[in-house]
Amino acid sequence: MWLIGELINCTRKKVGAAAAARDAEFIKETARRQISAGAHMLDVNGGLPGQEAECLTWLVNVVQEAVPIPLCLDSADPVALRQALPLCRQRAMINSITDEPARYEALLPLIKEFHPKVIALCISPAGPPTGVEDRIATASRLVERLTGEGLALDDIYVDTCVLPVSTGPEHGKAFIEAVGQIRQRYPGVHISAGVSNVSFGLPLRKLLNEVFLMLLMAHGLDTAIVDPCDHQLMMNLWAAEALLGRDEYCLNYLRAFREGKLELPAA
Amino acid sequence: MWLIGELINCTRKKVGAAAAARDAEFIKETARRQISAGAHMLDVNGGLPGQEAECLTWLVNVVQEAVPIPLCLDSADPVALRQALPLCRQRAMINSITDEPARYEALLPLIKEFHPKVIALCISPAGPPTGVEDRIATASRLVERLTGEGLALDDIYVDTCVLPVSTGPEHGKAFIEAVGQIRQRYPGVHISAGVSNVSFGLPLRKLLNEVFLMLLMAHGLDTAIVDPCDHQLMMNLWAAEALLGRDEYCLNYLRAFREGKLELPAA
Repeated sequence: MWLIGELINCTRKKVGAAAAARDAEFIKETARRQISAGAHMLDVNGGLPGQEAECLTWLVNVVQEAVPIPLCLDSADPVALRQALPLCRQRAMINSITDEPARYEALLPLIKEFHPKVIALCISPAGPPTGVEDRIATASRLVERLTGEGLALDDIYVDTCVLPVSTGPEHGKAFIEAVGQIRQRYPGVHISAGVSNVSFGLPLRKLLNEVFLMLLMAHGLDTAIVDPCDHQLMMNLWAAEALLGRDEYCLNYLRAFREGKLELPAA
Repeated sequence: MWLIGELINCTRKKVGAAAAARDAEFIKETARRQISAGAHMLDVNGGLPGQEAECLTWLVNVVQEAVPIPLCLDSADPVALRQALPLCRQRAMINSITDEPARYEALLPLIKEFHPKVIALCISPAGPPTGVEDRIATASRLVERLTGEGLALDDIYVDTCVLPVSTGPEHGKAFIEAVGQIRQRYPGVHISAGVSNVSFGLPLRKLLNEVFLMLLMAHGLDTAIVDPCDHQLMMNLWAAEALLGRDEYCLNYLRAFREGKLELPAA
């Protein structure tokens, strides 16, 4: 699994406040914690109202001073992205392009110029998806359009759009089924999910996020935007890789066990 | 999910010792604990060497004195089953028939006489399965033969045979895929799993069992033989039902939360 740490997001109160105050040490510490917990890439969201470009570029520089890791630029603002992309020292990811005409047209030139990896989020001109079929239709359209522009399947991360189960009991199942169908239709594409969206509005969000990731991995998810500092989620993930045959002879599981990583820290 | 509590099993040291000493109170307490944790049925295994029939009938009587719940008779011994089946006050389940000729022929008359539910375990005349295809072939053969004898799909619980991932990294994935394919081929059949077998020989078996159940539920498992006193497993299960749209408007999840069931008990 490719894990994208979700914590540096200005829509989170503490992070937004730290970014507004340009508290670099708080951001750096949040970056280091996620890497040490197991993240392979960090999502960076600079969505402070009216100053996204300045905030995003500041975050990109600060995070890269702390950790040598690729960044996932969480923005649909072409101005912010055009400023941030050249600052990335490793190949970045854009989170995300959609099939909405304005967003697609605004981001495509940046993708062609800077060659980032791209999350293809299944929102169509009609809006967010409602079931399995429209998720598949939008995913297919995005994959076909992007590969038609020269992107490799390996550069595309389909996200069939996680919606909260609190707003519709069918949202979780539809997302899961869509993951399985995309995995069959495009074996070479990556499939990602903004896992935590599923639990919005419900108590014990951590538990729901932990379990949703398992249900998605069972159907072929290979990339996830998550809180890597959720220790139970990481333990589940090691176990799932062993059970899904992605960890030959359970060697990573056994190493994690020997290193004491498969125990819940004392409360 | 239909949960079958696995703890009353004489191959477990403490239970075997209690059964050998005819310690009824230990068995009753083990039964009560499982029901109060959420089991819908109790597996009862009387496999003491040389005295399975006496032990199984004793267990069946003792458990039913403690709790009014149906039993899953975990035996392939037709003598033990013939003595135990008439003692069951509620409709029992047999765990399990297989496609091995001697076992199939020995158990079929009991099934026709006592009409229990039946776990159809995917072991063929060639032995335990090795991949997805032989699991599907044996499952299909058992379903066709048993329905040919007059059993309803609703009385059959296919178990595609959980084998430890420690003995083959592909065992977990093959079982999971087989569950998904059986679910598609026979929408009306039940699919069960002896979940804990997957973790044999590995450290932190509880973690692997907890996660394996999630991976199986994602593909349509509706019945599981598990330790219901594993609190994390039960929490995961409530979350999974909400995420899979099997818990309309998350009402059970929210009730479990209000009742304090979604917190890990203090160590």
